[in-house]
Amino acid sequence: MHFFSQTASDGVVEKTFAVDGVPGVLWSPIGASDPAPLVLMGHPGGLHKKARGLVARAAHLVTVYGFHAASIDAPGHGDRERSAEDSEWVDRMQRARTVGEPLGVIVSEFNASIAARAVPEWRATLDALQTLPEIDPDSPVGFSGMTLATEIGFRLAAVEPRIGAAGLGAAFASEALLDVARSVTAPLQYLLPWDDPEIDRESGLALFDAIGSAEKSLHAFPGPHQTVPAYEAEDSARFLARHLVAK
Amino acid sequence: MHFFSQTASDGVVEKTFAVDGVPGVLWSPIGASDPAPLVLMGHPGGLHKKARGLVARAAHLVTVYGFHAASIDAPGHGDRERSAEDSEWVDRMQRARTVGEPLGVIVSEFNASIAARAVPEWRATLDALQTLPEIDPDSPVGFSGMTLATEIGFRLAAVEPRIGAAGLGAAFASEALLDVARSVTAPLQYLLPWDDPEIDRESGLALFDAIGSAEKSLHAFPGPHQTVPAYEAEDSARFLARHLVAK
Repeated sequence: MHFFSQTASDGVVEKTFAVDGVPGVLWSPIGASDPAPLVLMGHPGGLHKKARGLVARAAHLVTVYGFHAASIDAPGHGDRERSAEDSEWVDRMQRARTVGEPLGVIVSEFNASIAARAVPEWRATLDALQTLPEIDPDSPVGFSGMTLATEIGFRLAAVEPRIGAAGLGAAFASEALLDVARSVTAPLQYLLPWDDPEIDRESGLALFDAIGSAEKSLHAFPGPHQTVPAYEAEDSARFLARHLVAK
Repeated sequence: MHFFSQTASDGVVEKTFAVDGVPGVLWSPIGASDPAPLVLMGHPGGLHKKARGLVARAAHLVTVYGFHAASIDAPGHGDRERSAEDSEWVDRMQRARTVGEPLGVIVSEFNASIAARAVPEWRATLDALQTLPEIDPDSPVGFSGMTLATEIGFRLAAVEPRIGAAGLGAAFASEALLDVARSVTAPLQYLLPWDDPEIDRESGLALFDAIGSAEKSLHAFPGPHQTVPAYEAEDSARFLARHLVAK
């Protein structure tokens, strides 16, 4: 694990790092002393580790709860080169969007492929982050994110027992993802954009229904997935805090 | 408006009262000085103004937010006599439950009839409560309740502009109630029990979809309507507080 830069503002220390060549960011409270829980934050498809909404939610977790938050670029996103195969997928997606064809199948296949590559990267990143003295290695770890990050989050939570709570949402319900969701047992909060023009409502309902966790909650809000109300974002942070802070 | 008794414990003053013969309870903070917002709390069908869960939620609103909370017995409930017609409805409902017939139509008709009678009672109660010096007459008023109280709450919110936020849930979606929901514009939070053995999931989704409010949120939780998780009950209180406290 290599650290590259460190800046601080508004109560948050931001450090950039790389683990096995995967670039990431760690946000931490300024001047914290005791080890604190960690939340892994996945960015939406097409964006990157420092997407604006993600950074805002990270700052909230750091300044209100004293947590650490970390984000990495998904394969082919942010500072990482996009493979020829991924570029083809993006082209297919954009063609479908242009002609108004349903996106579900293409997006699900593309995101599943990215997620298969991203899960080991997240696990390696988590291994590295948990060696840092400021991160409590005994605390459950949170995962938070929507769209692409939901494909990753379900798959990560299904295989990684350190994930103690996940806040996901706004994904297409492929049969493959439904199967993964059934095997997840960590507490899960699922955000459903009620009026998204591309991601169908039924996908969210089917995924929520499939989730194997004893504690799961579905929060639906009007509008598309880009307009998560502030009160729901704050409740997602409360949900993570409830499960990550040692009882 | 007549007050009958007053007791105090655990930070809450409880006063019993009647308005035009309808018995009610008002819960208030001990030793509060400034006028504060009011939340009207409807009890579920078959219960009464001091149902255990209702009292707990009222105490939470009083002690955490400094609000006042009031509850009245619905027609034919609690300290009020049940009419012969209402008794027939209850008998029909119990027969259907015994033989495992769907309850939706009977419950919807019965609750709509009770709600038609309860709405003017709630408005008269609200008129009376707003004359009390401890209740802020300029603050929006909240309404909270599930099952029967949802039939009442939708109909009250549709005609009563003083209702500034309503937390409802777990009702059958009759065509009549869907029509009422479409005309409601106050911020609304809807609780959906995902696995209720009697109240179908589709009713909750249809009602949420119908609600005319620009701010609406659907929160679904596992299990039947009797098992609202503590974190959802707390979030409902936060939802009310967000809309009732003057900006």
